[in-house]
Amino acid sequence: SALTLPASYLGQVNGRVLVKNPHLDLMEEDVLYHLDLGTKTHNLPAMFGDIKFVCVGGSPNRMRAFAQFMQRELGLAGAGEDVADICAGSDRYAMYRAGPVLSISHGMGIPSISIMLHELIKLLHHAKCRDVTIIRIGTSGGLGIEAGSVVITDTAVDSSFQPRFEQVVLGDVVVRSTELDKDLAEELLACSRDIPDFPTLIGHTMCTYDFYEGQGRLDGALCSFSSEKKLEYLRRAYDAGVRNIEMESTAFAALCGLCGLKAAVVCVALLDRLEGDQIRASHEVLWEYQQRPQRLIAAFIRKRLGLCPTD
Amino acid sequence: SALTLPASYLGQVNGRVLVKNPHLDLMEEDVLYHLDLGTKTHNLPAMFGDIKFVCVGGSPNRMRAFAQFMQRELGLAGAGEDVADICAGSDRYAMYRAGPVLSISHGMGIPSISIMLHELIKLLHHAKCRDVTIIRIGTSGGLGIEAGSVVITDTAVDSSFQPRFEQVVLGDVVVRSTELDKDLAEELLACSRDIPDFPTLIGHTMCTYDFYEGQGRLDGALCSFSSEKKLEYLRRAYDAGVRNIEMESTAFAALCGLCGLKAAVVCVALLDRLEGDQIRASHEVLWEYQQRPQRLIAAFIRKRLGLCPTD
Repeated sequence: SALTLPASYLGQVNGRVLVKNPHLDLMEEDVLYHLDLGTKTHNLPAMFGDIKFVCVGGSPNRMRAFAQFMQRELGLAGAGEDVADICAGSDRYAMYRAGPVLSISHGMGIPSISIMLHELIKLLHHAKCRDVTIIRIGTSGGLGIEAGSVVITDTAVDSSFQPRFEQVVLGDVVVRSTELDKDLAEELLACSRDIPDFPTLIGHTMCTYDFYEGQGRLDGALCSFSSEKKLEYLRRAYDAGVRNIEMESTAFAALCGLCGLKAAVVCVALLDRLEGDQIRASHEVLWEYQQRPQRLIAAFIRKRLGLCPTD
Repeated sequence: SALTLPASYLGQVNGRVLVKNPHLDLMEEDVLYHLDLGTKTHNLPAMFGDIKFVCVGGSPNRMRAFAQFMQRELGLAGAGEDVADICAGSDRYAMYRAGPVLSISHGMGIPSISIMLHELIKLLHHAKCRDVTIIRIGTSGGLGIEAGSVVITDTAVDSSFQPRFEQVVLGDVVVRSTELDKDLAEELLACSRDIPDFPTLIGHTMCTYDFYEGQGRLDGALCSFSSEKKLEYLRRAYDAGVRNIEMESTAFAALCGLCGLKAAVVCVALLDRLEGDQIRASHEVLWEYQQRPQRLIAAFIRKRLGLCPTD
């Protein structure tokens, strides 16, 4: 596929995942501390060199279930059996693989996903992976959409509805772009047309640093605003094109973009925030909702691998 | 103990944990979603009404180990046996109890600890807890101190070394104080004098949104600065009184302060950042380091409960 970034830009060259850090070449060993992996203790090219898809999500249980689901979907040996946590030596993140698919948890919020992504991108670099697509499959609050809808993000925006991510570097703020791969988003939307039992749409995703006050919830330990002010804010977000709210997409888009990874964000809405704040659906309903992005991504990966009869 | 906050201020009145959210009283039910607890599904006063100490830390395994350690230290029945995860229905956080001590994991970073604290503070409120002390026992990077040193935070500061936490509320930034309880910090330092086998000190703790670029590390997937610029930044932090760096203390201090919880932050330094970036000590050494804040807090709780012969 054509490299659309300027040649001077960091990113995938000939499909390789690149890091832009001149210090890394000088290090004798790279300890990926929070993943409990390292260049001297593990043969990363042998373990990960053939990875083509990386799927990330907040919850470790959900990402284990996704790896098991992908084993079945790809018809892999061992399907139905338990999968091993590659990062078992650390309880910061969980990592599983199913064929060419890596499934990793990232916890909640920008700082947590950011640590994981730095170490994952170095892992893909050390492993000499090529042509990797990375997708965040998550949960979110919807905005003016039915609970259970799946949103494919076209642009991740901050709490002022701007497509930017502010990264502090040595005490100074650096502003980064949060654009995601538009072709990949369209490809995912096309896949969704074969799954008619839930609505899928493309829209902006707002990313916040806080679940309660930051997302205008009335049910936190602190709340200083009225229901009217909350709805006024959420309606302004809707008018700016926001269709769901979560807590990782801007940092994910910025970091993956800078390293040239083709990236997408696909989240299910657990509720419509214009209707309420509390997530009150039953465990069973929520579990089925959380499977929707997984089913969409499985269809996408099967299609990419030529496993679909209609392909 | 005297209430030093003005009467109009939210906080503990007669020792009660108070929330300042007028909407909560109007809710028929409060679902603490990420803890998998709720006011209708659980008898929170019966489950938690006698809690006096809440200890929080990033890693679920470490917080389970702390609960087991406290069971032994307090001479409780069941000591040595496994402890049950009270939040087993959610894999976002893990929660254990040992007598009057609650031990909870909060994941990594401000957004993650913030979700947990909102729900924990509401839990303590619903459970009608009184005179609760909350302590974060964590890991950190040291600054000009020996690896393995334990830092008791007097003030949590941001990446510009300012004692403030910026909270976005409906898209606007609200600045909050990050002061911690000075008497509690001194009480903890006094306890440390009985544990001579590791150094303990009081200092400022810098809290960042990122582990790599935000803390001036040279070993992330991205790094745009030189080793000299890094050391210049870290030395400025040292000169401002910073002795360690972690990723939760400002939000923890701000939220607990606003709700009148007496709060402390006690973190072990896993390395000296003036010496390097990578955490390369063995699992065994790191495990022993991580027990140091736990041992200090155990001594403090035993003293508070009158379980020390010298008390």
